[in-house]
Amino acid sequence: MPELRKDPVVGRWVIISTERARRPSDFNIEPVRARGGACVFCAGNEDKTPPEILAGRPHDSAHNGPGWSFRVVANKFPALRIEGELEPSGEGLYDRMNGVGAHEVVIETPDHDGSMAAMSIDAVTDVFLAFRERLIDLKKDPRFEYVLVFKNHGEAAGASLEHPHSQLIATPIIPIMVTEELAGSALYWQMKERCVWCDVVRQDRRDRRRLIAAANGFVAVAPFAPRFPFETWILPERHRSAYEESDVDEIRGFAALVTDFLRRMNAVLGTPPFNFMLHTAPLHDGPLDHFHWHLEIIPKLTRVAGYEWGSGFFINPVPPEDAAAALRDVG
Amino acid sequence: MPELRKDPVVGRWVIISTERARRPSDFNIEPVRARGGACVFCAGNEDKTPPEILAGRPHDSAHNGPGWSFRVVANKFPALRIEGELEPSGEGLYDRMNGVGAHEVVIETPDHDGSMAAMSIDAVTDVFLAFRERLIDLKKDPRFEYVLVFKNHGEAAGASLEHPHSQLIATPIIPIMVTEELAGSALYWQMKERCVWCDVVRQDRRDRRRLIAAANGFVAVAPFAPRFPFETWILPERHRSAYEESDVDEIRGFAALVTDFLRRMNAVLGTPPFNFMLHTAPLHDGPLDHFHWHLEIIPKLTRVAGYEWGSGFFINPVPPEDAAAALRDVG
Repeated sequence: MPELRKDPVVGRWVIISTERARRPSDFNIEPVRARGGACVFCAGNEDKTPPEILAGRPHDSAHNGPGWSFRVVANKFPALRIEGELEPSGEGLYDRMNGVGAHEVVIETPDHDGSMAAMSIDAVTDVFLAFRERLIDLKKDPRFEYVLVFKNHGEAAGASLEHPHSQLIATPIIPIMVTEELAGSALYWQMKERCVWCDVVRQDRRDRRRLIAAANGFVAVAPFAPRFPFETWILPERHRSAYEESDVDEIRGFAALVTDFLRRMNAVLGTPPFNFMLHTAPLHDGPLDHFHWHLEIIPKLTRVAGYEWGSGFFINPVPPEDAAAALRDVG
Repeated sequence: MPELRKDPVVGRWVIISTERARRPSDFNIEPVRARGGACVFCAGNEDKTPPEILAGRPHDSAHNGPGWSFRVVANKFPALRIEGELEPSGEGLYDRMNGVGAHEVVIETPDHDGSMAAMSIDAVTDVFLAFRERLIDLKKDPRFEYVLVFKNHGEAAGASLEHPHSQLIATPIIPIMVTEELAGSALYWQMKERCVWCDVVRQDRRDRRRLIAAANGFVAVAPFAPRFPFETWILPERHRSAYEESDVDEIRGFAALVTDFLRRMNAVLGTPPFNFMLHTAPLHDGPLDHFHWHLEIIPKLTRVAGYEWGSGFFINPVPPEDAAAALRDVG
């Protein structure tokens, strides 16, 4: 059974995921290069994944058979386990609870060699609508406080399978990075009675030096203090705290700008490995004036080393103004 | 000029290090494999580094010539610049200051193919005494609040040069991870009037499941909630907040246990790349009842991916009790 454990000094929770210890890729620097017949995410291999939770498929096609455009399935090697209660307990000065949560995979396309950058806006919209549907569904489980949607693309960005996919993890705890964003933005609201991300969008649209692209109610900006070279945020211009409250038109506008950004990134940086992470409001907080959902995208270009791990202070060799100019000009 | 910039939401400072953008290794996955004649850290190439700040050498040998056992030099590609004042300034909702700081390299041995695990305890003691001497010296500069000593060993752990070396970075700001440790341990002190790390040492010495080794007044333990597989903390048993207040005997005991641990780690994990980071009290805080200096060691075995970057929630596939048992038994 996986466990959630809390560091007694800084209060940071970690997932001790014993079921993943069996994954062949855990201590293996090589990616799983399975293709075609061997790739568990390819069409025709639907029986090699857990049954589908959600899929894009014609009405006359059978569940868990071919004919789909995307599929959502439970992760076969989940970091957390869906069954059970938290049962928090102590052990001297330490705290732990059962590692209860959901861990799902969104297989974005049947095309093994596809990529989100090369998919049509319609196809990406369907994937992003699937994120929304899973958020709405997982919200019904009272054990879960948060769902983080993320993507690892490429070996160096932590992908263990090549086939295009995203993931989501639902947890009984709000992740510390979201807690820090909630606290910081609440403080800003207290001082200014404005959303800090709305102010970022306004200032960077006017200033333009960190603006990468803007269209259909969304902006892509290089943040003022990025941890990583070419780190990018994509935000709705209109204030909205919860991703799952977006309507189809908004999600289509979002899909169009994400696709546009990924193409720019690939052109400037030579199709790098990357991660993206969706920051939305906690499941049960209701609409928040001070929180603004956004997608963070990090191309994997540099190694994180001892200074960053020891300090939390990131050394970034590329000013965001330079990164934005390169990404803007390629458009 | 490098800059320190603050994220307007979470308050995290980053270093925008324009002078490092020129480093050939910045976007290069290959390590610099320079050896012998070409390695700037090898004996005979002393003129290829900035002049030495400190060195272990016989009284009759000349500065910046061969004959040394270790050397401390300024980093030729510093993340921060030693000259200047902070000059904090705003830009709309953003905050920045000049990237003032010190960035030094400790070349640990003239032997290109050496490693800390293979060095004698005397030689490692000399390197660790050099850390102490640099901390004491940098404390005299009123612009600096903190010095973080760290080591990147091996390409995957971020080392850009193979030759054995550690580094230190002095900053005008206390790094956020140290701030979090200070805040958490102050809260624990407020509740218990005990140092949380003293309690960790006591509980884990008694419990033994996470104890790796103990000798000469130091313990090596697998932390209860480790971010990474085989993450290890080495702490003095006696409460002490500032590393630089350690006497020679203590530093020798520390060197002996670090060397012992690195040999165990190499035996169990096949000489992995690793990082270590020294957490000591801020330079100007004086002795603290609630803070306890310690070394954190992280073998580089897994990739950090989107979930960790987006959540701050680390997924660790190896329970620390299993890691400690493997490291203990190999002894």
